[in-house]
Amino acid sequence: MTEQLTGLVAVDAGGTSTRAVVLDPAGHCLGYAVGGGANPTAVGAETAAASVAQSITEALGTAQLPSTRIRLVVLAMAGAGSPSVAAEVRAQLTGSVLDAHVVFESDLLATFFSGTHQSDGYAVISGTGAGAIRVEDGRQVAVADGLGWLLGDEGSGFWIGHRVVRAALADLDGRGPATALTPLLLARLGVATPSDAGDREPIIAVLRTLYDGPPVRLADHARLVFEVDGDEIAERILDDAAAALERTLTAVRSPTVPGPVVLGGGILGHGGQLVDRLVGARGAVEVHVVTDGTLGVCVLALRRAGTNVDAAVFEHLAASLTAVR
Amino acid sequence: MTEQLTGLVAVDAGGTSTRAVVLDPAGHCLGYAVGGGANPTAVGAETAAASVAQSITEALGTAQLPSTRIRLVVLAMAGAGSPSVAAEVRAQLTGSVLDAHVVFESDLLATFFSGTHQSDGYAVISGTGAGAIRVEDGRQVAVADGLGWLLGDEGSGFWIGHRVVRAALADLDGRGPATALTPLLLARLGVATPSDAGDREPIIAVLRTLYDGPPVRLADHARLVFEVDGDEIAERILDDAAAALERTLTAVRSPTVPGPVVLGGGILGHGGQLVDRLVGARGAVEVHVVTDGTLGVCVLALRRAGTNVDAAVFEHLAASLTAVR
Repeated sequence: MTEQLTGLVAVDAGGTSTRAVVLDPAGHCLGYAVGGGANPTAVGAETAAASVAQSITEALGTAQLPSTRIRLVVLAMAGAGSPSVAAEVRAQLTGSVLDAHVVFESDLLATFFSGTHQSDGYAVISGTGAGAIRVEDGRQVAVADGLGWLLGDEGSGFWIGHRVVRAALADLDGRGPATALTPLLLARLGVATPSDAGDREPIIAVLRTLYDGPPVRLADHARLVFEVDGDEIAERILDDAAAALERTLTAVRSPTVPGPVVLGGGILGHGGQLVDRLVGARGAVEVHVVTDGTLGVCVLALRRAGTNVDAAVFEHLAASLTAVR
Repeated sequence: MTEQLTGLVAVDAGGTSTRAVVLDPAGHCLGYAVGGGANPTAVGAETAAASVAQSITEALGTAQLPSTRIRLVVLAMAGAGSPSVAAEVRAQLTGSVLDAHVVFESDLLATFFSGTHQSDGYAVISGTGAGAIRVEDGRQVAVADGLGWLLGDEGSGFWIGHRVVRAALADLDGRGPATALTPLLLARLGVATPSDAGDREPIIAVLRTLYDGPPVRLADHARLVFEVDGDEIAERILDDAAAALERTLTAVRSPTVPGPVVLGGGILGHGGQLVDRLVGARGAVEVHVVTDGTLGVCVLALRRAGTNVDAAVFEHLAASLTAVR
């Protein structure tokens, strides 16, 4: 560390919100701010970049550190692999916020380091999307799924929400069994329940509403699966989601890396019933559940800055982050 | 019938082509033409309407009948229920082709009457989309599914193609079992097979190609499921598709209507293995398989014109249509 305080910025860009942290190379959090959603698939590269820039600007404000002191920005986001998104974010940051070096990291790796300081193990994420990675020596060495709502993301919020909506429509249509998900979905969408068995108005109203939005918005209805008790269809959706995430994790497994396994993303981070199913299958392996990747992207920033993030630094960083949030 | 020959136009507007027939009220086919695809969901209302108008114009040309002699146009199309599509088609026909009364019928009803002259029974369609109807007294009195690629259409070309692509990607990703569908899909998309187990280039290339097009185009890959022999994954997809179509048919069943059952659409009309599964489950019920709805929309036009379409008229019409095609 130099005499003059230098700072790092760590950003966890998620689908519904973006979290920016200003910290020093020892792992003290100096500032924190929350911005809008920054999933480039959902909101577009430009809006995603604007959310990132805004959250960084506000975090720097709370840290009362001039942007010239920032030497590194580490940004974890789902679309990090996309050059167009990276370029758009870089362009907006350079113009409006700061000229520091910007490094992109995968949201899966940020999830991993939100649960552990160890440099080997696995992360399974289920938010709007879903995927798993194997981490060795702090790097993502294998990945499975994360292939997007149409062609992959098995066990994700979209995947669950899609099944919830299809099950409710099959129920209304007489093709599928009755499920407690149906009245919940209709209430959520503000659609009246059918007047009799042949009434197709509710089906038409649901179709009109849902085809009107982008498909990925079906993820909004995933939570309904956690709101019904003892519903056979909901239980089957959760069992299938857990089995899908299990297959995804199995695809990146290596006998030389026993664990830990970090579970994260909006669905796994908050969905106790799905975590119970996955943890139940894990046996003796160390499992951590995290609600977002903020702590992990701070770890990644520290590692990039040359800080050795051992158990003590990790503990201190976690406590310091909790204090500023 | 008046002294002066009057004509009817029957149009079967499908996803990949549109068929127009000019016929007289006795069921003699006078002209026939094939135009472009007219699924409003796939190509938009304007292009769909243009395909319809073009096929009618050409059919009138081959019939050598002035358009002033046409008193009725009956048009079967998937989007017939949509007022915007109907209005667009009417506008284009009125301006450029003819001023005859235009009546819209469901493509499901046209499928039904392509297989039988009887006025009670069922139709199950699986093309790009899928659905089933119960017909009583020549009218569609119950419908199931047909809810579109994202929220319904179970057992359809999209539904099958979607599963084919997901199964191939799960295979490439190590999440799913090996399947003969994978090399077929890669060859179809012009993507090189993986160089080793960790090679993700083929996955990325498949994603790039398929996310680039509209989701409904996944239906293009449904046929692969018929091109592999004894592949466990392909067999399961076909079993699941047959079960889904069976559920859809069951949803419209009534004990007072035993049959017949007409199977149609691009997948059922040409997919022997799927038909075998459905027919196997049908027992003693009369089943007809049809490749499109052209004959049926002619029957609907004749019924609208007051012709009693009995077995003899139906036979004559079918032979006359075969002769002009």
